[in-house]
Amino acid sequence: MTTITSIEAIPYAIDYLKPLKFASGEVHAATHVLVRVTTSDGVVGIGDAVPRPFTYGETQDGIIAVIEKIFAPALIGTSLFARELHAARMERTVGNPAAKSSIDIAIWDAIGHTLQTNVSDLLGGYADSMRVSHMLGFDEPAAMVAEAQKMRDLYGISTFKVKVGRHPVELDVDVVRALREHFGSEITLYVDGNRGWSAAESARAWRMMQDLDLAFAEELNPADDVLGRRWLVGQVDAPYIADESATTPAEITRELLGGSATAISIKTARTGFTSSQRCLHLAEGLGVEVVMGNQIDTQLGSIATVTFGAAHRLTSRHAGELSNFLDMSDDLLTEPLQIQGGELPIRKGPGLGVEIDTDKLNHYRTDK
Amino acid sequence: MTTITSIEAIPYAIDYLKPLKFASGEVHAATHVLVRVTTSDGVVGIGDAVPRPFTYGETQDGIIAVIEKIFAPALIGTSLFARELHAARMERTVGNPAAKSSIDIAIWDAIGHTLQTNVSDLLGGYADSMRVSHMLGFDEPAAMVAEAQKMRDLYGISTFKVKVGRHPVELDVDVVRALREHFGSEITLYVDGNRGWSAAESARAWRMMQDLDLAFAEELNPADDVLGRRWLVGQVDAPYIADESATTPAEITRELLGGSATAISIKTARTGFTSSQRCLHLAEGLGVEVVMGNQIDTQLGSIATVTFGAAHRLTSRHAGELSNFLDMSDDLLTEPLQIQGGELPIRKGPGLGVEIDTDKLNHYRTDK
Repeated sequence: MTTITSIEAIPYAIDYLKPLKFASGEVHAATHVLVRVTTSDGVVGIGDAVPRPFTYGETQDGIIAVIEKIFAPALIGTSLFARELHAARMERTVGNPAAKSSIDIAIWDAIGHTLQTNVSDLLGGYADSMRVSHMLGFDEPAAMVAEAQKMRDLYGISTFKVKVGRHPVELDVDVVRALREHFGSEITLYVDGNRGWSAAESARAWRMMQDLDLAFAEELNPADDVLGRRWLVGQVDAPYIADESATTPAEITRELLGGSATAISIKTARTGFTSSQRCLHLAEGLGVEVVMGNQIDTQLGSIATVTFGAAHRLTSRHAGELSNFLDMSDDLLTEPLQIQGGELPIRKGPGLGVEIDTDKLNHYRTDK
Repeated sequence: MTTITSIEAIPYAIDYLKPLKFASGEVHAATHVLVRVTTSDGVVGIGDAVPRPFTYGETQDGIIAVIEKIFAPALIGTSLFARELHAARMERTVGNPAAKSSIDIAIWDAIGHTLQTNVSDLLGGYADSMRVSHMLGFDEPAAMVAEAQKMRDLYGISTFKVKVGRHPVELDVDVVRALREHFGSEITLYVDGNRGWSAAESARAWRMMQDLDLAFAEELNPADDVLGRRWLVGQVDAPYIADESATTPAEITRELLGGSATAISIKTARTGFTSSQRCLHLAEGLGVEVVMGNQIDTQLGSIATVTFGAAHRLTSRHAGELSNFLDMSDDLLTEPLQIQGGELPIRKGPGLGVEIDTDKLNHYRTDK
């Protein structure tokens, strides 16, 4: 039996090219944790843990602590393949989605290397790539149009998620209108409020954007404004995506059945592969749309997202949020990911198909 | 790329030791279809298709026809691993659950052989065996107690599903009471009506069995008696299992949200492995119990059931219906399955871990 023999958590920091700004905060550098799972065969699997303290309460140090003190002892010695057992043991500890997910992804990567098979094939093998949706952060309309045009010219990207939630709402409405006027029907547009507006502000902004053919609305207002959220979702005439408010199967059930969302975002940085399949099958069985989201992922995180998203039919229906790694000044992979023709392909090799550059890891790791 | 190069559908017939009787009918012989998927590497995967015309409308000839005429042409040439693509292509044809499932299981078996890995590990790797629940068909109380005692003595089985649905309801109530009185708290008991009673009869029978500590009620009355079913489910103080009324994710959603069930039965003979995972994750996300059911499966069907059931945590919680193969006069496997200590283990080899005995297949096949 192939068993798990070690789980390492390595902190590192890589600067963004410029700070990323949105309604719930801004970030200057990727201070992540690289997780390495080693098996009794000497195979190594990798995953990337993304701390998002303002959204999920995790910090870089906390991720390392919970992995070293709780999750590694609980999983070492178990069969590499026993994901249902791993999930059961990790679920004894509440929260910690990034820590759990990075371990789960590293385990799948190790399984893929052990079987000399790509993880996308192990998951479902639907497609070889996903269309890419690019996130546009807060700026002036002209600057955001220029950014979108650049992404279109450089990478062929034609789906854009516009961060909204500023005050007055006209700041954002003007941006969305400028984008639609500049690109016409060439592009798919949707908006993400990161809970920045009230229900009433959201309804007003949505009405002002009625003619702009928006594909989705995401977390325009807080899900904890329970009745306001339901009232809003009932009148938004596009799928309303629950993202940070629906991060577990039970939350997804509650938000969808409660009328607080009509679509969900799946992020492998948050639910790994094992639990992302639970979320996907739940959403599919309840008959709602899903979008593959981004936790401001590195290239390793992005390859995990596309590996999962391309593997399944429902996640392949819409462009995935796969371009945040372009905002980083450097990365840890030996071969950089390439977005071409608006698509990000999976890597066809065993596991996730990527490798860590040891020199870069030694340079960026912050524990030595 | 490993592709699917052929899909064969081979009819065969093996007598039962005695006819199996229940409220929805009786069967004398297993007239099934052995499905063989061959890959470009020369690997062969197998699955068993079980026609149940009175429940799902499929016949042995119809299964062969839809496989040969529609599903084989749609799947030959595709990647062996592309289950999400296979499912999408097969879903274009309505119904035909046994035909679709047997192909899906044969594909998973071929994947396991290709990767030299057990399918249970590929699915989730939770446990190595399941406790067995044995189905007790209609008879006199003394005969059914004797049958249960025999199963307990020979195989250590301690969970029994009692077929009910006869008229007057006392016929069945007396059986359940005799079983509980004979075994005391040593055994787990539940009842399956196969839609034989009305809602009122079911409520009355349930009330008469109030002191008998029943674990589940299954399909006591027809789900199509919509309001009667909801009325009944609301008063049954054990999980009410939807079986034949909830065979797809959409049906599961409708029946659970409509209050027509509070648990579901998963049968790999009906939803294969790929769609059984959808059903499982949906039920898990909605927070209800699941039971691994039996389509009067052969040994090949039973190994598929335990391979899936043991792989997942939620399906391992309750005994699986895994003993129907004991009612057959013979089987196709080279090494017979063995129930011991009330458990059926998975087979640890690659794929499903079983092989077809060529001589037996040649003897029982009905196409040559």
